[in-house]
Amino acid sequence: MKDPKAMYALSYGLFVLTARRGEQDNGCIINTGIQVTSQPNRVLIAVNKSNFTHDMILETGAFNLSVLTEKADFSLFQRFGFQSGRDTDKFRGFDRVQRTENGLLAVTEGTSAWLSCKVASTVDLGTHTLFVADVTDGDVLSREPSATYAYYQANIKPKPAAAPAQPGKKRWVCTVCGYIYEGETLPADFICPICKHPASDFEPVAD
Amino acid sequence: MKDPKAMYALSYGLFVLTARRGEQDNGCIINTGIQVTSQPNRVLIAVNKSNFTHDMILETGAFNLSVLTEKADFSLFQRFGFQSGRDTDKFRGFDRVQRTENGLLAVTEGTSAWLSCKVASTVDLGTHTLFVADVTDGDVLSREPSATYAYYQANIKPKPAAAPAQPGKKRWVCTVCGYIYEGETLPADFICPICKHPASDFEPVAD
Repeated sequence: MKDPKAMYALSYGLFVLTARRGEQDNGCIINTGIQVTSQPNRVLIAVNKSNFTHDMILETGAFNLSVLTEKADFSLFQRFGFQSGRDTDKFRGFDRVQRTENGLLAVTEGTSAWLSCKVASTVDLGTHTLFVADVTDGDVLSREPSATYAYYQANIKPKPAAAPAQPGKKRWVCTVCGYIYEGETLPADFICPICKHPASDFEPVAD
Repeated sequence: MKDPKAMYALSYGLFVLTARRGEQDNGCIINTGIQVTSQPNRVLIAVNKSNFTHDMILETGAFNLSVLTEKADFSLFQRFGFQSGRDTDKFRGFDRVQRTENGLLAVTEGTSAWLSCKVASTVDLGTHTLFVADVTDGDVLSREPSATYAYYQANIKPKPAAAPAQPGKKRWVCTVCGYIYEGETLPADFICPICKHPASDFEPVAD
């Protein structure tokens, strides 16, 4: 590509994607939720296979999408995006939810709407699965503007701390979650410990 | 659904989608362009089967996405969105383009980036086809913020004229393109003559 940053021009919404298997609720943050047909009313989402929520949706065929707004607090992204439901109950101590008629949770804080969806078909995309799903229910929660990924990057995500690197060290920032790596060089196979994105998503920090 | 307006909370970018078959270039406006995997770098688009561009992509397996910005003029949406390439050469008299290495056109006015894409797989979604495609090239054209569909609705699309309805008549506005229908009632099978959306996308105009 002449300039890989061309990919950054694409626009995305931001969502808490929730699922339930047995008695266990879980959720994660995704940026890929779009309507693909209106007759029938269907959406699609692309979900990384490493997400615990991914496996729950694959097994149960059901999910809720809660649409995050510009007022969503960074703590929501930390709660649902920066830890895994394999180790943690992400809903512990969090009561800003409602249980929708499909039995799943929807997030009611920092969100403008929720949709209940039933998987119609899946497409294996390698690292991700594409779920095409019927919208079976949904409601509006507020009139706050929906957060785009660009808005999140510019206004919700904390800026990296401005502390200078130690002598002889350089710093790289994860452009996805803001994590700072400090060292002599950034290993090519480095994976962000917070959001799991690869070294190609890091940029040098100018000290 | 408790409130179908929940669908309006989803966020979309806006794109001129271009294709070329033989010596013929064509393009249309779409709002469904997202990256789905980074390894390999793949995007997906969902395209209405009634679009001429759809058939060209299905046959040739190639397309360019030009990303529209907040500075894009409404005339771009009229040129590429409100007429069909079956009847019209949409590029006639329009020189704000460059031909990329795949031989297709990219739009260089009101855009921030373009991507050249090669179709890897398709999914039939009824009214639409989903194209999953490898990004083979791309470049940045400007640093203007990308236009979201919400931004277009609020800031680019002209507001309906405020003229009152004639006596005994009511008015409905197409929420997609702004076309005004005037009459005693809006027929249930009405199709917008400008953007081809159905009666369900119209709202009454308060006079």
